[in-house]
Amino acid sequence: MKKHNFYAGPSILPQVTIEETAKAVINFAGTGLSIMEISHRSKEVIAVMDETVALFKELLNIPEGYKVLFLGGGASTQFLMVPYNLLNGKAAYLVTGGWASKAAKEAKNFGEVIEIASSKDKNYNYIPRGWKVPSDVDYLHITTNNTLYGTEIREDFDVNVPLVADMSSDIFSRPVDISKYALIYGGAQKNLAPAGITFVIVREDMLGKLNRHIPTMMDYRTHIEADSMFNTPPVLPLFAALQTLKWLKANGGLKAMEKVNLEKAKLLYDEIERNKLFKCTIPDPKDRSIMNICFVMNDNYKDLEDAFMDFAKSKGMIGIKGHRSTGGFRASTYNALPKESVQALVDCMKEFEQIKS
Amino acid sequence: MKKHNFYAGPSILPQVTIEETAKAVINFAGTGLSIMEISHRSKEVIAVMDETVALFKELLNIPEGYKVLFLGGGASTQFLMVPYNLLNGKAAYLVTGGWASKAAKEAKNFGEVIEIASSKDKNYNYIPRGWKVPSDVDYLHITTNNTLYGTEIREDFDVNVPLVADMSSDIFSRPVDISKYALIYGGAQKNLAPAGITFVIVREDMLGKLNRHIPTMMDYRTHIEADSMFNTPPVLPLFAALQTLKWLKANGGLKAMEKVNLEKAKLLYDEIERNKLFKCTIPDPKDRSIMNICFVMNDNYKDLEDAFMDFAKSKGMIGIKGHRSTGGFRASTYNALPKESVQALVDCMKEFEQIKS
Repeated sequence: MKKHNFYAGPSILPQVTIEETAKAVINFAGTGLSIMEISHRSKEVIAVMDETVALFKELLNIPEGYKVLFLGGGASTQFLMVPYNLLNGKAAYLVTGGWASKAAKEAKNFGEVIEIASSKDKNYNYIPRGWKVPSDVDYLHITTNNTLYGTEIREDFDVNVPLVADMSSDIFSRPVDISKYALIYGGAQKNLAPAGITFVIVREDMLGKLNRHIPTMMDYRTHIEADSMFNTPPVLPLFAALQTLKWLKANGGLKAMEKVNLEKAKLLYDEIERNKLFKCTIPDPKDRSIMNICFVMNDNYKDLEDAFMDFAKSKGMIGIKGHRSTGGFRASTYNALPKESVQALVDCMKEFEQIKS
Repeated sequence: MKKHNFYAGPSILPQVTIEETAKAVINFAGTGLSIMEISHRSKEVIAVMDETVALFKELLNIPEGYKVLFLGGGASTQFLMVPYNLLNGKAAYLVTGGWASKAAKEAKNFGEVIEIASSKDKNYNYIPRGWKVPSDVDYLHITTNNTLYGTEIREDFDVNVPLVADMSSDIFSRPVDISKYALIYGGAQKNLAPAGITFVIVREDMLGKLNRHIPTMMDYRTHIEADSMFNTPPVLPLFAALQTLKWLKANGGLKAMEKVNLEKAKLLYDEIERNKLFKCTIPDPKDRSIMNICFVMNDNYKDLEDAFMDFAKSKGMIGIKGHRSTGGFRASTYNALPKESVQALVDCMKEFEQIKS
């Protein structure tokens, strides 16, 4: 039976990324060695790093003055590195979910944190609007896509202070105006690579402005100076990331990707609206994520949750259980998920409605 | 031509680790999904984590009271996490090489660091002896194997303070009396796994004794409470580590491994001593590493260095260029390197001697 992979992360990757990585695990770049057992100082691995950085910059149209880094430790380590490097006095955080909240909490140990707005009052089911950023903060931190709750900021904010964004779960899903950001980071295990590698895009003039001592591994300048090879980088995840970037380019880049992502999201959201058994957990359509689509059983059908889960599983749907914070279901529709998989889930919802009517 | 992989790290892994990982990249545990695109919260990945921890404990014979963690960030991040979690007032460091020196440097930002001895005076070509550890330090930090210079501490020191060891490049090369250590850590990209995963063995009663605020990701207790899944762990490197642990067990465990490692090292050191073209960079045999064997051209043959490198390459030797700190050659003879590869290098040295005589 065909499997449809809706996992929220680690999550579906392009088939070519999987096939090329499997080949490289056996024989990498004609070396006769596995990608897992070759020095990161070998010319072949340095070429992978260089090409990955170049293609990353090209696809995101990153302007001059920015550096791209590939590190270990996950986005959770960035919650710490961002204030270590940038927080001198005060920072503003927009709290739109569990990860945004963790990022704000971590920053509090480095200075004053101003939560300019939070959607916690409604279990993070909307993106707060109409907030103002104090002009004297060192930066505003946002989480563009809230994987746990299914909301997304799909615009590049104009703000009067440096903008820092966690884009773990929507990087490469749409074109981004990088020039509006001072720093962007993310775990790469959604739209890019397997777990184990973290990307950072940083405007270099943001760094070196504080008097605080920064531990070597926490200092972005350490990794900039060493071209992400201060210590051994996660070589295989880096290789896999390069394969995904090549696939993105071959498939028309980020504009083309956004078009398909919008189509996939519309297909599923429309069915959630139409189908009397289900409802979306995010009331306002403009706040709805096109990466993580969250829904629950409608009010009169709550007892059917387990039955639908079993039915969906029997049809090959994988990873649609909602996060415990929201319950119900979550279908993650990352770049590599084909439209056919979304259609299969929609068909499954329709069929289940017929059976139960 | 048969390749002989002497890289210092990332380095040779067992063939079965490579083959099983390649299979799992295509179809992991019969799920129909790649190991790269499956949730770390899936029962299949949790099973990998549990089995890896269990086998890690079994092979190293880890007593009660210790926790085993798998994290990102490399050993370089441990240089920081160790003092964050353990350094209250003073710590002692034994400085036996570049990595040991970096570890000591990092700790200086957390308290007083006492370098009880250093071999820097002779380019780290020996292990200092006869030092004393002040009884009032929080711990003594050692680096058991010095990858760059080719020295190794192959005994478990009896000291009067908690002992912390970086075992990045010799973990699993010999049985270790874990009970003599308070904490052991290492990057796993030598004897265990591909780059991207770091192991920590920590005696739990060492933790929670300081008043310092520890950032969430830097706090060992965060990762203990979450069974190394506080954030997404490096899933594929973890899977590969498990395959290597299974291979270790199937091949007789650490006693058997040590026996073969000693044989391989003797084979090569004996040839370095015998062959008039070469000399070992570590004068005292008891300080010589059995993992990284460093040698240079002998005094009258220094101009033959490039010629030998070319000759060795032509015979399939890979990764034998010495680190820039020592020059010459370094043959890393990790667990997975077959004795035949060491013999091939020895034959190559003999043949080169004949040609040049």
